[in-house]
Amino acid sequence: MITLTEPTLLIDKQKCLRNIQMMVDKAKRNNLTLRPHFKTHQSHEVGRWFRDAGVSKITVSSLEMAEYFAHDGWNDITVAFPVNVHEKDRINRLAEKIKLNLLVVAPETVAWLAREVKRPLNIFIEVDNGYHRTGVSPSDFTAIDSILNEIKKHAPFRFAGFLGHAGHSYKSEGDKNKILAIHHESIGLMVPLKEKYTSAYPDLILSTGDTPTCSVADQFTGMDEIRPGNFVFYDYQQVTIGSCSIDQIAMAMACPVVAKNPERNELAVHGGGIHFAKDFLKQPDGSNIFGKVVTLTDTGWSTAETNLYVKSLSQEHGIVHAPKALAEKIKVGDFIGVLPIHSCMTVDVMRRYLTTEGERFTTYR
Amino acid sequence: MITLTEPTLLIDKQKCLRNIQMMVDKAKRNNLTLRPHFKTHQSHEVGRWFRDAGVSKITVSSLEMAEYFAHDGWNDITVAFPVNVHEKDRINRLAEKIKLNLLVVAPETVAWLAREVKRPLNIFIEVDNGYHRTGVSPSDFTAIDSILNEIKKHAPFRFAGFLGHAGHSYKSEGDKNKILAIHHESIGLMVPLKEKYTSAYPDLILSTGDTPTCSVADQFTGMDEIRPGNFVFYDYQQVTIGSCSIDQIAMAMACPVVAKNPERNELAVHGGGIHFAKDFLKQPDGSNIFGKVVTLTDTGWSTAETNLYVKSLSQEHGIVHAPKALAEKIKVGDFIGVLPIHSCMTVDVMRRYLTTEGERFTTYR
Repeated sequence: MITLTEPTLLIDKQKCLRNIQMMVDKAKRNNLTLRPHFKTHQSHEVGRWFRDAGVSKITVSSLEMAEYFAHDGWNDITVAFPVNVHEKDRINRLAEKIKLNLLVVAPETVAWLAREVKRPLNIFIEVDNGYHRTGVSPSDFTAIDSILNEIKKHAPFRFAGFLGHAGHSYKSEGDKNKILAIHHESIGLMVPLKEKYTSAYPDLILSTGDTPTCSVADQFTGMDEIRPGNFVFYDYQQVTIGSCSIDQIAMAMACPVVAKNPERNELAVHGGGIHFAKDFLKQPDGSNIFGKVVTLTDTGWSTAETNLYVKSLSQEHGIVHAPKALAEKIKVGDFIGVLPIHSCMTVDVMRRYLTTEGERFTTYR
Repeated sequence: MITLTEPTLLIDKQKCLRNIQMMVDKAKRNNLTLRPHFKTHQSHEVGRWFRDAGVSKITVSSLEMAEYFAHDGWNDITVAFPVNVHEKDRINRLAEKIKLNLLVVAPETVAWLAREVKRPLNIFIEVDNGYHRTGVSPSDFTAIDSILNEIKKHAPFRFAGFLGHAGHSYKSEGDKNKILAIHHESIGLMVPLKEKYTSAYPDLILSTGDTPTCSVADQFTGMDEIRPGNFVFYDYQQVTIGSCSIDQIAMAMACPVVAKNPERNELAVHGGGIHFAKDFLKQPDGSNIFGKVVTLTDTGWSTAETNLYVKSLSQEHGIVHAPKALAEKIKVGDFIGVLPIHSCMTVDVMRRYLTTEGERFTTYR
């Protein structure tokens, strides 16, 4: 293994490839387009692993990220975030180069796009299929029709379909039946839209799919496209949700131990909020966990139970709960592995990672 | 004001300069060295504002950050984080160039430094003056003496003094008396160390000082140096702690509104975890606040009460609580200002900012 000197985000390429193939296979079995969300890995190189697995359409969360991936040859990109009416320059540049799919939630945005963008655009209407973050209610046909009517007025624009995100699946707390219930309910809210609008728009598609529902469900009746992202790496949160096993997590932060306090059952590591971000989970006993500790090996890490976890984070410090007997065995200078709570945010703050095969990748910003 | 198109971190330079001058004056009145912590702003340019105010010694939280500031001419830098025994290359490079002050908590680290570093080093012993994160107990003279004995063995090393961080002042919840109590207690734990070791080390200094105690206290009896950092920008957390007024906060994120849902008393903005980080506070009613909304003006922002706050963050989305009547008045495309909860982390994830005078700065990584 490569010599480590500082907090380093490790990626297990073989686990990533297996995670990718698992979702590619599931999409194929269900006759779905897999349009993975690239906000998780944010990297050209990992994007190419998807391409090698046959993926040709992607999702991103910002126009800035779309530009980054367009630069690496991706030419069918959905920006799964409501259009920001100030970003006409980026939209124009992208629409000239690739098939750009945008998300709108109001007719005014379509009218603005018509004034500012003279290129073809594919427009999705975002619907709120239960998460209640953004999106038009799928039963609010007045709102939907007002957007459709506005799209119709502008020749270069094409209505692409309805897009939902059942983000409330993240509240499933390990109960796969709950994930499936949310999955079927959220799909159930979208299917009638296809029935209603398919005669006017025979090519419209229904797009959904977060990592928990796409990991657990194996029936997607009525859906045309899924957009999970996190599954490429997974993380400790997804284990607790019930989306994956701990062995599917393809990412661990290597952190050097810098101080010990066995009397307090603690180790201090270099590895703080600027390395992990600050997502955390509540454990059954009410304590917070900011990362699950694993043992680094020559080829990656072992997921055998360590009874160690990150209990708090400040800017550079991570404080690890370590039962006294274990804390005494670990030496200052040892590296421990930590499975992050939320891999997307960890990648975003680190912006660079190292595969267990020795490749170093950077991200879009 | 400059035309904004995307989430943009705004810095009010005049407020920063006032915050800097306030702390410079306080240090002067108390005959203290001000060695500000630069992990908050992470920027050469803001560092120069400190230099212009007469500051010549600084604190950072990593060797990487020390290298960045050494590159801009800072030549007396304390790395206020326990030495990571893998970073010998950075330590050697820095020790060759500047007066480098390092933090140790165990004699083994000093022995390791002696093997790996042949340059002069100033070594602080970190003491735990009540925060219980890292540091030797100030009453554990066995531990302290073992470190001092190890330092003595190595000619190029000099014992610089004792360094503490009363980070538990952050739990003061608006009670200035609580901040002062923590301040005096934490100082009280350090003063005896000077009395005990001053005959052997007449030049040893006592260094302490976080933003809450340094903002509120005006007596630092026995201390030689203070190291606050956050005060250059402050943030909404510091208002709730009791360190500053809302008008002293020198930072606001400008976020475009991308969707509205007055029925749910909500706006959606572009401004998520990748812009703010994910620090939050509990409000008196038990709800979470991820940022306080203010009104942007031509020259910065007004701190008049808006009754709006960020109630949740995902990767790119911020959901703003906005009473229906107010949500109806705000238009998609409007920019709102948000005072972050924790300015250090917000700077760390944004890594670029724009002053209200039009200058664009970047950070160390």
